[in-house]
Formats: sequence, structure tokens, C-alpha cells
Amino acid sequence: MKLVGVRSGRRVDVAVQVGDRLTPVAEVGEFYADLDGWLPKARLIETGSRPAAEAELAPPVPPSARVICVGLNYRAHAAEGGFTPPEHPTIFGRWVASLSVSGTPVPVPPGEPGLDWEGEVAVVVGRRLADVDEETAAGGVLGYAAFNDLTARVAQKLTSQWTLGKNADRSGPIGPLVTADEAGDLADGLAVRTRVNGETVQDGNTRDMIFGVGELLSRISRVLTLEPGDVIATGTPEGVGYVRTPPRFLRPGDVVEVEVDRLGVLRTPIVSAGERS
Amino acid sequence: MKLVGVRSGRRVDVAVQVGDRLTPVAEVGEFYADLDGWLPKARLIETGSRPAAEAELAPPVPPSARVICVGLNYRAHAAEGGFTPPEHPTIFGRWVASLSVSGTPVPVPPGEPGLDWEGEVAVVVGRRLADVDEETAAGGVLGYAAFNDLTARVAQKLTSQWTLGKNADRSGPIGPLVTADEAGDLADGLAVRTRVNGETVQDGNTRDMIFGVGELLSRISRVLTLEPGDVIATGTPEGVGYVRTPPRFLRPGDVVEVEVDRLGVLRTPIVSAGERS
Repeated sequence: MKLVGVRSGRRVDVAVQVGDRLTPVAEVGEFYADLDGWLPKARLIETGSRPAAEAELAPPVPPSARVICVGLNYRAHAAEGGFTPPEHPTIFGRWVASLSVSGTPVPVPPGEPGLDWEGEVAVVVGRRLADVDEETAAGGVLGYAAFNDLTARVAQKLTSQWTLGKNADRSGPIGPLVTADEAGDLADGLAVRTRVNGETVQDGNTRDMIFGVGELLSRISRVLTLEPGDVIATGTPEGVGYVRTPPRFLRPGDVVEVEVDRLGVLRTPIVSAGERS
Repeated sequence: MKLVGVRSGRRVDVAVQVGDRLTPVAEVGEFYADLDGWLPKARLIETGSRPAAEAELAPPVPPSARVICVGLNYRAHAAEGGFTPPEHPTIFGRWVASLSVSGTPVPVPPGEPGLDWEGEVAVVVGRRLADVDEETAAGGVLGYAAFNDLTARVAQKLTSQWTLGKNADRSGPIGPLVTADEAGDLADGLAVRTRVNGETVQDGNTRDMIFGVGELLSRISRVLTLEPGDVIATGTPEGVGYVRTPPRFLRPGDVVEVEVDRLGVLRTPIVSAGERS
């Protein structure tokens, strides 16, 4: 089942997408507050009640969600940045305010030579998880989505903490949520590919993740209680732009795409700082 | 004017507090979406319609808010942690999910020797601020609140990124929002004092901040557009527990208080991991 967000003014509903049509299910906060009630109803939906093309899409997660990002979760990506493979997952945060959807133009903030791409897979949590083991954690996954962790490298590297450079306006395009029954297990291997103006710049596979989904969620759940709707961005494979010689960044006019097996394609046009609002 | 959040099921309203009585104004998301409409109405409220003691208080910010925390913003605190005074504000993030209010018991996560205190002042944003100068940024402050950035130091120091240790359950008690007209200017100096079981452990003053409020908001606004309701935690003065010999942490049974001139007192009992849910 494929779930999307549909915006109407300040309200966002979760909708089931079937082909190119949608059927709204519930307001996004209500949906995640009662997944046991809404998911069976959503699964009964076999056709969409209206064309997806006419809807204003939004990330399919509530405004209260945490977007918990994992850095350095692929050995080759850690190595290209000059890092040794970590003993613990490196966790940094995004706010839902930085999320967007496929097709949304993303501006380069002032003072940046461009934005860098980081294609990856995001996990959406489906159960409350408080200090749970890996198996329980893995069973609490609602589904997966393609994600692009577009990064303002200057702001990221100003100090030891990456947060500012990871939260530029609209810089986190996230795709439809594909439920776990349809997406399968990341450990079995989903190809993650990033293209810039059609040229492949990242070609990784989720089977190369250092920390698997169950381990990530279990470790995080020791410190903070994960709630339905929380997002874990599982890290990017090698091939980002800033480590290249010369460094390569996304500039206004470029189009970056992230494609993940079974999860679909995210397409993001890059625009200038002047087109920010 | 003093504003608090009042929870009723999943809904939070912003209310005006007058003495020990409250009058609700609007649902918190509606309130921040139309501050120009709601603030004048709130200012007409002269008495509370019901006793504050009967209300379930909540942080007075919307679930979509970013809680943008500034590390190392006092010279003496940077020095006690072995850091040189920074050229740029060190920014890390909390999610609203980690916020709580005065009186809420906060559990020590498993694997931690205790929690560390960080008394500080939080700024609440009152206007959209996109790439603005310092003066404009300073004019966009709605008000201030006492804040305790309770920290799980083991989780904070597992990797280079502090986020996990800064988001333990209920670990961010925040006080009522005191509007800027009543709180005055942080540069004029508000005393920030932290007490553990009655003993003073931090005794700082906001006039010693390295980066002032206008500069912080201006710098952040270059990269991301601040929205009404966003919170900036302005950093803690010297006197935290982990740098002491021997290190000192908050253990179950301890009570930590943060008191800020004009903003009031936050009182937080510490409980065990078993009392997490």
C-alpha cells in the first residue's frame, strides 16, 4: 500500500494512492494516533476517488514527527568523507518543517556554493518503541520512503554540529510511504541511485548499511521513545558531491533525482536563494 | 503577558495566565498561524476564567516548532568543557516531542549515570524571518521562557553529534512564555540560576552570552526560514555537572530547579528509567 499526504490549507490528510488516483483516509495526526484503527480501513481501499495530479501533496507524516537522520551508515561513504566506520550510529536531526515532496523546487541558501545530494531510504515508525530489542524494533516499522537529505555543506561544517546545514528550507524531499509488506526488508537489498541532470552520481544498495533498521531503532529507543510517524533516515551510500575533486554541487537549474527500488523516484529542481519564499 | 499551553486529550490551547488563573485563547497551531489576530485578543484578557491548578499544562508552542539549541554560548561554559569560544553559534536540535513543563518527572535513560542540568533562556519567535539582519531578527521575538536542556551525556558523547543525548523523553522542561514587552532585553541581563536539591550549581547572567538574540536569529535565518512558534534555546552558563571532579549527575529522587529573572522557576523531579512511560 502506498500512502501520501494531501494538503488543504493548514490541514494534511493521509491518502491511499492507487495508480494515479488518491483516496483520503484521515487527518495525518488522527491517522498516526490510531494506526490500528485506520490501517485496516485504508487497506480496503481499492481505487482512488480523485486524480493525484490535482492534489497538493505533502510529506505523509505528522508535524510532531522527529526526523532522525543517521550519518555515516555505509562504509564507503564514511571512507570518502575521511571518517572511520563508526561503532555507534551518528544521529543528527531534521525537523518536519524542512521536508518537502517530489517536484518541489529547493532553493540554495545564501553563502552556499550549491546543495549536495544524499539519496537514501527513510523508515517510518508504526508503533511506540521504548527501550526495545532489535527484533521488536524491526517489527515496529510501518514502511519506507525514498529520501534526499539535501545538504548545505558550508552551514553543516561551520561548527562541530551538522544540524543547521541539514535543515535548509524544503531541503528534505521525501516520497510516498510504501508499507513494509510491499517494500520488503532493507537487508535483502534495495538499490539506491541518485542522478544529477540524468547522470548517475550514487549507485548504492541498502544491503551495505552498517547498522540495520532493527538495530538503529533499538539503539535510538533506549534514549527516546519512538512514536508512530517518526522518521529515521538511514544514511547515504558513497558518491556525494563535496568530496569530489573538484567538489560538485547542485546549482540553480539542476535537477536531482533519487530512485529507490520499490519506493519510486523523487525529482527535485534546484532554484536560487531568491526563489526561497 | 504570560502564555501557557493547556492540554486536553491530543489538543493543546494557548492560554493567558493571570495570577493563578487561566483563560484559553486558541488552539496552539491556530494561535501561531495568526499571531496578529490572536495577540490583541489575548492582551484584552484581564482575569483568568479557571484555576491554573486544575489545568494540564503543556509547552506553549506548536508541534511543528523547531527547538533550535545553541551550544557554547557563554565563554566560561565553553572553557569548562575544554572548548575555545566559537566563531559561529554551535547549533543542535531538539524536537517538541522532548519538551515538558515544570513539575513533570523526567526519567534517566538506561545506560546513563544520571542527567546533567543546563539552565537557560529560550526565545520564542513571533514572525516569519527569512535571511534577515540582526535588528529585524530581534524585532521578531515574541517572548522568552525559562528552559532546562537536560542532557544524557553518555548518549550525547557516543559520536560527534549531540542530538540523541539532547532528546531523551520529557528532558526539555520549558516555562510559561513571557512576552518581550514584560521580559525586557536579554542583553540588559537576566540572572539564570540552577539549583539541585536547593543548592545553587549555576549562577549566570544573559549579559554574558557570546551571540545575542538578534545575531542568533539572523544567522539561523540565512539558512532556514524561522516561523512563529519556533524556539531558540540560547545556551547555558558555566557550572554543569559532567565537568566536575568527580562528575555530578541528577539521580532519581533529585529535584532540579531553573530560575530566570522575570521568567519564573522550573521545578523538575528526576525519576528512574522504570518510570519512563
